[in-house]
Amino acid sequence: MAQAHWHCYSWLVLLCACAWSYPQAGSLGREDVRNCSSNPPFLPVSAVNTTMRLAALRQQIQAWNLSAYIIPDTDAHMSEYIGKQDERRAWISGFSGTAGVAVVTMRKAALWTDSRYWTQAERQMDCNWELHREGNIPSWVLAEVPAEGRVGFDPFLLSVDSWEDFDLELQGSKRHLVSITTNLVDLAWGSERPPLPSQPIYALPEEFTGSTWQEKVSTVRSYMKNHTMAPTALLLSALDETAWLFNLRSSDIPYNPFFYSYTLLTDSSIRLFVNKSRFSLETLQYLNTNCITSMCVQLEDYSQVRDSVKAYASGNVTILISTSYTNYGLYEVIPKEKVMIQMYSPVMGVKAVKNSKEQALLKASHVRDAVVVIQYLVWLEKNVPKGTVDEFSGAEYIDDLRRNENFSSGPSFETISASGLNAALAHYSPTKELHRKLSSDEMYLVDSGGQYWDGTTDITRTVHWGTPTAFQKEAYTRVLMGNIDLSRSIFPAATSGRVLDTLARKALWEVGLNYGHGTGHGIGNFLCVHEWPVGFQSSNIAMNKGMFTSIEPGYYQDGEFGIRLEDVALVVEAKTKYPGAYLTFEVVSFVPYDRNLIDVSLLSPEQLQYLNRYYQTIREKVGPELQRRQLLEELAWLEEHTKPLSAMAPHTTSLASLWVASTLAILSWSN
Amino acid sequence: MAQAHWHCYSWLVLLCACAWSYPQAGSLGREDVRNCSSNPPFLPVSAVNTTMRLAALRQQIQAWNLSAYIIPDTDAHMSEYIGKQDERRAWISGFSGTAGVAVVTMRKAALWTDSRYWTQAERQMDCNWELHREGNIPSWVLAEVPAEGRVGFDPFLLSVDSWEDFDLELQGSKRHLVSITTNLVDLAWGSERPPLPSQPIYALPEEFTGSTWQEKVSTVRSYMKNHTMAPTALLLSALDETAWLFNLRSSDIPYNPFFYSYTLLTDSSIRLFVNKSRFSLETLQYLNTNCITSMCVQLEDYSQVRDSVKAYASGNVTILISTSYTNYGLYEVIPKEKVMIQMYSPVMGVKAVKNSKEQALLKASHVRDAVVVIQYLVWLEKNVPKGTVDEFSGAEYIDDLRRNENFSSGPSFETISASGLNAALAHYSPTKELHRKLSSDEMYLVDSGGQYWDGTTDITRTVHWGTPTAFQKEAYTRVLMGNIDLSRSIFPAATSGRVLDTLARKALWEVGLNYGHGTGHGIGNFLCVHEWPVGFQSSNIAMNKGMFTSIEPGYYQDGEFGIRLEDVALVVEAKTKYPGAYLTFEVVSFVPYDRNLIDVSLLSPEQLQYLNRYYQTIREKVGPELQRRQLLEELAWLEEHTKPLSAMAPHTTSLASLWVASTLAILSWSN
Repeated sequence: MAQAHWHCYSWLVLLCACAWSYPQAGSLGREDVRNCSSNPPFLPVSAVNTTMRLAALRQQIQAWNLSAYIIPDTDAHMSEYIGKQDERRAWISGFSGTAGVAVVTMRKAALWTDSRYWTQAERQMDCNWELHREGNIPSWVLAEVPAEGRVGFDPFLLSVDSWEDFDLELQGSKRHLVSITTNLVDLAWGSERPPLPSQPIYALPEEFTGSTWQEKVSTVRSYMKNHTMAPTALLLSALDETAWLFNLRSSDIPYNPFFYSYTLLTDSSIRLFVNKSRFSLETLQYLNTNCITSMCVQLEDYSQVRDSVKAYASGNVTILISTSYTNYGLYEVIPKEKVMIQMYSPVMGVKAVKNSKEQALLKASHVRDAVVVIQYLVWLEKNVPKGTVDEFSGAEYIDDLRRNENFSSGPSFETISASGLNAALAHYSPTKELHRKLSSDEMYLVDSGGQYWDGTTDITRTVHWGTPTAFQKEAYTRVLMGNIDLSRSIFPAATSGRVLDTLARKALWEVGLNYGHGTGHGIGNFLCVHEWPVGFQSSNIAMNKGMFTSIEPGYYQDGEFGIRLEDVALVVEAKTKYPGAYLTFEVVSFVPYDRNLIDVSLLSPEQLQYLNRYYQTIREKVGPELQRRQLLEELAWLEEHTKPLSAMAPHTTSLASLWVASTLAILSWSN
Repeated sequence: MAQAHWHCYSWLVLLCACAWSYPQAGSLGREDVRNCSSNPPFLPVSAVNTTMRLAALRQQIQAWNLSAYIIPDTDAHMSEYIGKQDERRAWISGFSGTAGVAVVTMRKAALWTDSRYWTQAERQMDCNWELHREGNIPSWVLAEVPAEGRVGFDPFLLSVDSWEDFDLELQGSKRHLVSITTNLVDLAWGSERPPLPSQPIYALPEEFTGSTWQEKVSTVRSYMKNHTMAPTALLLSALDETAWLFNLRSSDIPYNPFFYSYTLLTDSSIRLFVNKSRFSLETLQYLNTNCITSMCVQLEDYSQVRDSVKAYASGNVTILISTSYTNYGLYEVIPKEKVMIQMYSPVMGVKAVKNSKEQALLKASHVRDAVVVIQYLVWLEKNVPKGTVDEFSGAEYIDDLRRNENFSSGPSFETISASGLNAALAHYSPTKELHRKLSSDEMYLVDSGGQYWDGTTDITRTVHWGTPTAFQKEAYTRVLMGNIDLSRSIFPAATSGRVLDTLARKALWEVGLNYGHGTGHGIGNFLCVHEWPVGFQSSNIAMNKGMFTSIEPGYYQDGEFGIRLEDVALVVEAKTKYPGAYLTFEVVSFVPYDRNLIDVSLLSPEQLQYLNRYYQTIREKVGPELQRRQLLEELAWLEEHTKPLSAMAPHTTSLASLWVASTLAILSWSN
């Protein structure tokens, strides 16, 4: 799944590099978007009336003597997906997109979001709201808030990094950031706010874990002990950190098997902040909650974390925190001289490198996931020509296939099922109301993944059942060439993904094409589908053996079509002719590309050889599984679609023409 | 010329990434290096007795009530090459290498340098000195200087960035950095210190300049005016900034046509800090020194710069400075709220993009420089087999050839002339005393360049006149493939060089080879041979049309041989199949590679086509010039060495074998 640039998560730079060029929603006579400049203002049926909600919030703003109040779009754990009860920005503004920050003053209400969401915002917001397509929030605050004005925020909803950026922007301006631990939107929302989740938190069966929680705790403790700054405690704030550490899961967050929690790990104690009532007796036993020695988990209530950290910080301690994930609400209670900061916690670093069992688990989940995608592609091939499939019903079909798989825990993100021009919108998902019919005359892109007890998957395939244009074939083939060039690359251990990214784009760049998103992201074992800090951006850590990353170049032709070819790959040692510590990728997604869209003549002999070897692997890995399940139609499809491709196709002129050119050059020289 | 990583200039991280793996000098019975642990200590004849020098410095350390004194390796302008009178570190320690920082306390004297220089340091230093091969200076200072100790330094010899790094390391340690504008080494050095240069500073003839100084001043002023922070003044500290701005040159620095100077440019005035007596009446007139309006240059004495900046900073002003080049001595006299910092000054950015006249000038200098290198290669081909050439006489020969060229101002750096294993030392230069004979049995690397009034050049060729080993041919060909892959790459405008670097290494990485230096650097019009901020490292700015950079992959086999193939290339617009703002390189170095070392079978058809096209360009550019000068032997050599290479060489099996493999795969499938 293509991911917005990391920095887009920072709400200060929301309008940064999400460089999809979308048509801007105009409002000339359109009935689906608001028009606040007409008299009277026009509001579409989808607009939410926020007058009462804003009045309730402004009462609170006044009561707290504030000039403005900031409403970010995340939760206390900087989660990529958030629970209903955390959708404060959506509730106050009406705008339900996943990215966007609101600021409310006594006079104005303003929302900043990136170009993916401009039309949606114009559909959902009423005329109480300003939509900001550009500009940054601090400048607006400086213009709207008078000197000595107080700008309130919930410190649990800003990461340390985001808070520092904002604080820096306001420094010397005489506007004061005021941290208020009571959330003012929650006060306005009142009893309508959805309750916190209460479903059980369970331990993963041992066969689905790479190490016991005790082993993981020991590993992290020895990291802390060996660090030159020797922190006495590590505070874990991202939800996947705690889920990973204890091999615990639940379902508080859509698509993510997490539960609201924090962990404070010291050399002699383990404190887990969580709603205790969600554990069974068995799980309590699993966690050794009945003791207080170094390998016992002491449960404390989730809401107590700030007070507990503050109390712990009063001692002679050093607390290690990650600035990317830890919220300012916990950071601000630790005296500066007792805090040790890193961009990513050591848990993030350890979790990124999968041990051999975790690798085997992730690979196994990808074989089953390949069966799902192949079943779906076969089903589409039969049903699209009948005209009975649309983007939404297709997404439902593949989601159902995944739910029926062994160890399934549902999709790992909202399925992107996009036909024709919709696929040019990189984060488009169809709805029951708004979708497009699939057709043999259009390209179709499906980006989907599953959560399985053994692994998280994420794969994108783009197909065409009719006659693609020459340009579509060229663009598709060049995206494939980028995927292959990166997948087969060999590079020194600890090379930054940032410099490998070029390999995925080179074949597109050669003809003046490109794509505006990152080239890949880490992925977890029944954890995040976008697992930091692995990937190909400058904020990612260096590549090392045992990491998994997606590889997903694409091409998007605005208003026409979109292509993305995404696989997940394991970083493995490369066997090089001369000895050295070199790495390469082993692709673990096992679904063939669309032969109908590949122009073989563009592929180099090396790319072709790689592709045929990959197809051979697919047959070896997925063939037996299809056979075992007696999915014979799918097996036949697989064999047909993984036949070796040959350079001796009708279009194979490029090598030959080079040959001729070179011979001519020699002849002309000898004259 | 291969350049150490940028960060190596920062003396705090001297021991960073200069990853040449050199044999470490042992001292077991060797007579060329010191042995301070024998009794009595053994000193080679090359060692310098520093006892008196240290005693004189320690008198000053005591007089200033210091615990330690830092002696950096640069001058007040952070120059890459420095004048004799600035070689303070060399004088106090005996060690004359170009990189290395010394710290002297009352008890100890310590030197930090990188692995390139360890042997040289052991040859030149006496036993008063500790040689530090690793570890950083602040840690040593913390160990050697007691709490409340004062650590003195000359603020003119530390850049703002370096000072901040050091200050950060000592923060909270109770050791105090003490800025002393009187240089204590100079006091100890006394009358033996070489005098400051006094040769004339001259204006470049108009035909060798891209714009008049008035046009350049206007450009920079409009940058300042349009900047959101609207600085009232720009302080230029790097010597090439002032030389470029006024089209003035001299020869204060070896290999660099600069003169000691600073410029303070405001909207209404131009103040040039320089030794006024070095200007002729004509040059004074050229600079409009007789007036004080906005296009008149007001001359002030070089030594007055600190006082003048301080006085200017007392007004209602904002002074823009670059943190990479400006020394702390000027920074510290500007109140913090009046300083605006950038990594590079706007002059660096403007200078990096050559206008069409500057491009034409630089290209013309490269044609003449190609004649020099071709003459040298022809001469070597005739004389090496006779056994009459050594590394030093070869360097002298090519340097002389350059000096005889039109518009020559000598070499642009010390010629690297390295045979056999010496070429594995990336910064090796032969001396009259220490050099190796060139032989048909060894590879030979020559990295050299010239300063011409129209441009600065820098080119490396590696040759073998006998029978290279298969490994040498493979390594050479893969270095060439890297050079070609980067040179022919097409990439979006404003792509960072950092991500293109991979293209130069890919062919080496594939078989487990690599090189430990950067892939290229900017270059000037009769300015620096290493002109920042263009290049392929993370600290370089994005690539844009009109920039020149070297492209110089290499391979170094420790103790055996070294390969580097370096060209200079202009960044130009690429014509892509689909429209877009894309760039590529146009190579402007015009010397063929060694056919004897190219394994054509490794080249892809595209690489071969590129190479033959490049050879065609060489013939077209340099052939007529050789003809014009009646250098007929060189012309014949050029024609022979630029004949089109053909893939139908004996080794051309790789494509064919892929073909066979692919056919076999198809056959095996159909069975």
